[in-house]
Amino acid sequence: MDVAIIGGTGYGAAELIRLLHHHPQANVKKIISQSNSGVKMSEVYPHLTNIMEIEMEDFDAEALAKEVDVVFFATPSNVSKHRIPELLDLGVKVIDLSGDFRLTNRELYKEYYGEEMASDKYVNQAVYGLSEIYREEIRKAALIANPGCYPTSVTLGLMPLIDHQWTINETLIIDAKTGVSGAGRSLSLNVHYSEMNENMKAYGVGKHKHIPEIEQILTDRFSEEVQVVFTPHIVPMTRGILSTMYVDLKDSKNTAEVIDLYEQYYKNDPFVRIRKEGVMPATKEVYGSNYCDIGLYMDERTNKLIVVSVIDNLVKGAAGQAVQNMNIMFGLDDMAGLELLPTYP
Amino acid sequence: MDVAIIGGTGYGAAELIRLLHHHPQANVKKIISQSNSGVKMSEVYPHLTNIMEIEMEDFDAEALAKEVDVVFFATPSNVSKHRIPELLDLGVKVIDLSGDFRLTNRELYKEYYGEEMASDKYVNQAVYGLSEIYREEIRKAALIANPGCYPTSVTLGLMPLIDHQWTINETLIIDAKTGVSGAGRSLSLNVHYSEMNENMKAYGVGKHKHIPEIEQILTDRFSEEVQVVFTPHIVPMTRGILSTMYVDLKDSKNTAEVIDLYEQYYKNDPFVRIRKEGVMPATKEVYGSNYCDIGLYMDERTNKLIVVSVIDNLVKGAAGQAVQNMNIMFGLDDMAGLELLPTYP
Amino acid sequence: MDVAIIGGTGYGAAELIRLLHHHPQANVKKIISQSNSGVKMSEVYPHLTNIMEIEMEDFDAEALAKEVDVVFFATPSNVSKHRIPELLDLGVKVIDLSGDFRLTNRELYKEYYGEEMASDKYVNQAVYGLSEIYREEIRKAALIANPGCYPTSVTLGLMPLIDHQWTINETLIIDAKTGVSGAGRSLSLNVHYSEMNENMKAYGVGKHKHIPEIEQILTDRFSEEVQVVFTPHIVPMTRGILSTMYVDLKDSKNTAEVIDLYEQYYKNDPFVRIRKEGVMPATKEVYGSNYCDIGLYMDERTNKLIVVSVIDNLVKGAAGQAVQNMNIMFGLDDMAGLELLPTYP
Amino acid sequence: MDVAIIGGTGYGAAELIRLLHHHPQANVKKIISQSNSGVKMSEVYPHLTNIMEIEMEDFDAEALAKEVDVVFFATPSNVSKHRIPELLDLGVKVIDLSGDFRLTNRELYKEYYGEEMASDKYVNQAVYGLSEIYREEIRKAALIANPGCYPTSVTLGLMPLIDHQWTINETLIIDAKTGVSGAGRSLSLNVHYSEMNENMKAYGVGKHKHIPEIEQILTDRFSEEVQVVFTPHIVPMTRGILSTMYVDLKDSKNTAEVIDLYEQYYKNDPFVRIRKEGVMPATKEVYGSNYCDIGLYMDERTNKLIVVSVIDNLVKGAAGQAVQNMNIMFGLDDMAGLELLPTYP
Repeated sequence: MDVAIIGGTGYGAAELIRLLHHHPQANVKKIISQSNSGVKMSEVYPHLTNIMEIEMEDFDAEALAKEVDVVFFATPSNVSKHRIPELLDLGVKVIDLSGDFRLTNRELYKEYYGEEMASDKYVNQAVYGLSEIYREEIRKAALIANPGCYPTSVTLGLMPLIDHQWTINETLIIDAKTGVSGAGRSLSLNVHYSEMNENMKAYGVGKHKHIPEIEQILTDRFSEEVQVVFTPHIVPMTRGILSTMYVDLKDSKNTAEVIDLYEQYYKNDPFVRIRKEGVMPATKEVYGSNYCDIGLYMDERTNKLIVVSVIDNLVKGAAGQAVQNMNIMFGLDDMAGLELLPTYP
Repeated sequence: MDVAIIGGTGYGAAELIRLLHHHPQANVKKIISQSNSGVKMSEVYPHLTNIMEIEMEDFDAEALAKEVDVVFFATPSNVSKHRIPELLDLGVKVIDLSGDFRLTNRELYKEYYGEEMASDKYVNQAVYGLSEIYREEIRKAALIANPGCYPTSVTLGLMPLIDHQWTINETLIIDAKTGVSGAGRSLSLNVHYSEMNENMKAYGVGKHKHIPEIEQILTDRFSEEVQVVFTPHIVPMTRGILSTMYVDLKDSKNTAEVIDLYEQYYKNDPFVRIRKEGVMPATKEVYGSNYCDIGLYMDERTNKLIVVSVIDNLVKGAAGQAVQNMNIMFGLDDMAGLELLPTYP
Repeated sequence: MDVAIIGGTGYGAAELIRLLHHHPQANVKKIISQSNSGVKMSEVYPHLTNIMEIEMEDFDAEALAKEVDVVFFATPSNVSKHRIPELLDLGVKVIDLSGDFRLTNRELYKEYYGEEMASDKYVNQAVYGLSEIYREEIRKAALIANPGCYPTSVTLGLMPLIDHQWTINETLIIDAKTGVSGAGRSLSLNVHYSEMNENMKAYGVGKHKHIPEIEQILTDRFSEEVQVVFTPHIVPMTRGILSTMYVDLKDSKNTAEVIDLYEQYYKNDPFVRIRKEGVMPATKEVYGSNYCDIGLYMDERTNKLIVVSVIDNLVKGAAGQAVQNMNIMFGLDDMAGLELLPTYP
Repeated sequence: MDVAIIGGTGYGAAELIRLLHHHPQANVKKIISQSNSGVKMSEVYPHLTNIMEIEMEDFDAEALAKEVDVVFFATPSNVSKHRIPELLDLGVKVIDLSGDFRLTNRELYKEYYGEEMASDKYVNQAVYGLSEIYREEIRKAALIANPGCYPTSVTLGLMPLIDHQWTINETLIIDAKTGVSGAGRSLSLNVHYSEMNENMKAYGVGKHKHIPEIEQILTDRFSEEVQVVFTPHIVPMTRGILSTMYVDLKDSKNTAEVIDLYEQYYKNDPFVRIRKEGVMPATKEVYGSNYCDIGLYMDERTNKLIVVSVIDNLVKGAAGQAVQNMNIMFGLDDMAGLELLPTYP
C-alpha cells in the first residue's frame, strides 16, 4: 500500500513517518511540502537520517492519484479544503488530520476557523474518524476527517455514558491539559522554551476550535443536544493530553458499576484501556503509543462522576488514529503498525 | 524580631529562610530539626553556603520562649499538634504551615488526617491565616493555621463571589494543577524524576486533605453550606499551582462586571492581581513571589463563570503567606520582606 | 526464541520488554524479581496493562535452563555474579546488562565495585558486548558483558581513531552528560524531581565505575595504554547521553578527512550515523532508538579534534544493545526488533 | 540614583528590573525600546503587572543625559556601538551587557561579530566588568563592557590558577553547558519548546563569540598567550551555566591545596563560594542569585585538575554582574540590591 503525506515539515508528518515505518503493509512513497519542495526530509528532521531520505515534492493531484493508494493531510487549518476535492474526484482515498472536514455546520466552521467551509459535495463524503465509535462508517469512507487531539480524549472518555444515556448533563465540564507539541512546529512566543518551561496556563478559554467538534460528536450519540464548557491548558511537557471530565449521572451508581460499563463498552477495542478502581492513568503510560487510558471515580459525597482520559496527542490524538483509520479502511487489523509499546520512562 | 523555624530540612523551612533573609525586621535565630540536630543548614541545603551557617537544634519549648518572638512550624501532618500547645502556654506566638490546626471539625480531621485533632483549648485559639480575608482576626491571634497551598489559590479565587453571594452553587467544581515541590522533600516513586518528568496525572481524587479545608472556609463566608468537587493534578514543574474553577452565577453578568467585582474586592490587597479581560495568568508570572494572579471569563454560551487563579505553592501557598501573616500579627506592612519580584523567565 | 529477564522492576527490564515486544523471533516468557515475586508486571508498570500480564517469579536456574534460550540480567551491581555461573554451567546463554563481568582486572573491580569479582572460570567466558566492535566474538559467546551506557557512547565515538592509531593521546578528555534515567528507579534525593528539575551538576568526578571500563576497551585496541579523564554530569531530562571528547591527532587532518574515516569505519553498521560537516547531533534525534549519532569538528586553530556522540542511554546504552547482541549470538539481523525510529519530538 | 535600561523587551532588561527593584539606592526611571515604544512594560511582561507600569520610550541621548545617572544596554550585538558614543560624549555612565565593547582586537571583532567595531576613542574607554578581577578599573570607568555569561563562569573558575601562574597550559579545554534563556527571547526553532525539551546538543563549536573574549581576559593575566578549546552545549532548563575546565598544573598539588588557593583568592569576594573537598556545585544552588560557586578536583591518577564553575546566566552572567558593577562605580557595597538568596528548589 503506497502512501503520500502532505505537510511534510510538521510534527504530524514526522509522526506518520515513524508509525508507517513499522507498518507491515504501508510504504511512504511521497512527501509533499509547499515550503520545502526539493529538500530531503532528513535535512528538516535529522532524526530521520538514513531512514527517510526522499525529497519533498510539490502537490500534484494527478501524480498522487497514479502513484499512491491513500493520502494523509497533516496541514494547518484551511489548507486541505482546497486540495482534497480534486483528489476525491480522482478517486483517491484521503485521511485529513486537519479540522477542515470535521464540522457539519457551516456557521460554526466560519466562526471557529475564520473562513468558509468546503462545499457540501465534499463535506458530505467525510466520515469522522473516531475509530472505536464510527468503525462501520470508516470502513466504507473515501474521506476521513481525523479527530482533533482534545476531542479524541474527551469523546472516548465520555462515549459509554453518552451512548447508554447514563448522564443527565446537557452541559458537561471538561478541563483539559495538553503537552506543548500540540501547538506544532511553528514558532510562537507562547511556546518559546524559556517562556513555557516551568510554566502552566489556560488558553483559548471559551474560543477553542475543538468546542464545536466535541459538541457535534457527543450530540450525535446522545438523546439531547450536548453543550460543553471546555477549558484547555498547556503544561510543560512535549507529549500527552489529560482530560478531566465532570458528569452527573441519571441513576445512582458506584465506581465499580461505572468501570464495568466502560470495560464492556470497549471490550473489543485494543487501544482503550480502563484502569481498575482506585487507579488513575498518567500521560507517560501512553507516551508514544496509540492507547487511550481511562480512569473513573464516582464521588459519592457530591454525586459527581470524574472521568480522566489520557492519550499521546501526536499518536491517538493525530497520526496514530489516522493510521488506525487507514487500517480500517483497507480491511487490516486495527493494530497493524501500531503495536509500539509506550516508551517508559 | 527573632524567629525560629521548626522542620529545618523541608522545603517550607528553606523558603522561609529565603524570604526572611530579605525581611527588614526579622532574624532567623533558631532552626529546629529532630532528624538533623547538630547539622549545619548549609550541609542540608548547599545553596545556603555562607548565608545560613547555624546548626540545627532539638526542640526545646522553654528555650524558644526565651529567645524568639515567633515560631514557624514547617512540619509534616500530625507533628505540630504535639508541640504547639506547650508553646502557646508559654506565651509564644506560632504560625503553623502544616494542617494540624486548620480544621474545626474533629471527625473530618480524623477522616482526612488519620489521627485525633489537638484539644479544643488550642484548636479554638487558631485563626485561619488567609491574610486577605481574615486580616482582623490574624492581627490579634496567638496561633495562625496557615492555609494549605490549594485552599489559598481556590479561596482567593472564589471569595469575591462567595462573600457577595453572587453564586448559586452549593457544589463547585475545582480542577487544580500543582508543581511537584508541593510533595515536599521526602522521597517517593511518584516524584522520582524519571517517573514525573514529561508526565501528568490526577491524584488523591475525592480524598485530598484540602477538600474539607476548602469547604470549611467557603462555607464560613457563604449563606449556605458549600460543597466542592476538587481534583488535584500534578504536572512536571517544580513550583506553581493553577486552579480552574467553574461557577454558576445567580444573576446574569458579563466578564467585565465580574472583573470589576474582583478589582473592587481586592483593591487594598497588594498581593492579589486581577488580569484584564481576555488575559489569563500563567504560573511563571508569580514564580518565587507572593502574588496570587486571577483571570476571569464569563462563558455566556453556557452561562458558566471560569475563574483561573495562580500562585507559587511555596510562597503565597506556604512560606510567603506565613511571613505575610507574621507581618500582620506584628503590625508591619504586608509587604515587608515580600517585595521580591517574580523570577521571570 | 524464549527469553527470561532478571530484575523485573528496573528500567532495564521495562525497556527490554518494550524492545522484545517488537522482535519477530523473541518472546518474553519469564520475568524474575526477588522483591516482587508473584506480582504482575503491569502492577509495577501500568503502561504495560494488557500487554505484559505475567507474574514475576523467583530465580530458579534449572527452570530457566529448561524453558528459555537466553537470560538477560538487568540487575544492580554485584548481583549477577552470584547467579550467572550456575546458568552457564547449565548451558544457558546469558546477556548481562550489569557491570559484573565487564572488567578483566580483579583489583580494579574491587576498587570500583567494592566487592570481589566472580571467579576467573566465568569471567574468562565473558565477551564485551560492544556490538559493532566485537561482533565476531559475540557470535560465539555464551556470556555477554553488555557495555555500560557511557562506555558505549565514548568507545563508539573514539574507536575509528583508536583502531587506526590516529591519535597520539594516551590521556583523553571526556566530558559526558546524561539524562536522569541512568540513575535507575531506586529513590534518591539526587534524582528527586524537585531537586533535579531545572538543575545540572557534575557527579562521581574521578570515581565513576565506567572509568576502568572505558580505559580497558580503548587500551585493548590501541598501541599504548590509554588513560581517560572522565567527568560525568547529570542534566534535567529522562533519556539521552551526550559525550564530548577532546583528542589530539598524530597527523594534521581537516574535518572532512575525519568524517570520511568515520563513515568508512562504520559503513556496515546500521546503528551508527555520522553527521555531515557543520552539523552536530542532538540526543533527541536518537530518543527511544538504538542509534549512536556522531558529530565531528577539527578545531584547526587549537589543533584539537572534538567528537560528539549521542545515544539513548536505555537503548543503545543498555537494553537495545543487549537485544542487538542477542541477535548476533543467534545469527539474526542486527536490526531485528530494533527498527523503531527515534520518537521526535 | 536614576537608571535607564535600553532594550526593554529582552530577558536582560527584565532581569535588571527584578534586581534593581530591590536596590536601596537605584530607581528605574526609563525603559527604552525601539520596537515597543509607547507600550507598557507590563504588557510585554505580565509578571510586572502593578510593579513596572511605565511606558517604553524611543532612544533620546539628551533626555537620558538629563534624567538618569547610568544607562544599561541590554541589546543584541552591534546595537550599542552606535548609541554609546553619544552618551559618553554627554558624560553619561554606561554599562553595556552586550558584547560590543568587550574585545580589544578589531579583526577578531569583525570575525566573530560580523561588523566593524566602534571607534578606538570609545573602545579605549571601556573597562571589562569582571567585578572580582577588575574592581579598581571599574571604580573609575565611564563605560563598562559587562562580561558574557560563559566568560564570567570560565574566567572566575580559572583566574586563581592564571593569576598565580599555577598552570602550564597555553591550551585549556573548556566544556560548557547552558540553560536556554541565554538564547534570549527571539524566536528560533532551536529553542522552540518541543524541539528543546528532553534534548541536549553542542552548538557553535569552534565559532562561538565568547572564544576571543575568554582568551583575551585569560591572556591579560597570564604570562603567555592563552588559547582555549571551548565547546558550548545547550541543556533543557531555563537558567544556569556550568563550565567544566581541564587544567594541567605546573607543580604537583592535591585537591586541598587547590581549594586553599581559591579560598584565599576570593576571600573578600562575597559572590564567589568555593565548595569543600568532595563536593561539586549544582546550578540550582545559585538559581536567581549573583553567586558563582566553584568545585575543584585534582585527579591525581591523570594529573589533571578539574574545575567546575556554576552561575545563573541571567544574574552573575548578565544583569546581576551589571548591577554589581554599578555598585562599584558608584561607591556602594557590592551586594546592594543583590542579597537575594538562590531560589531553591
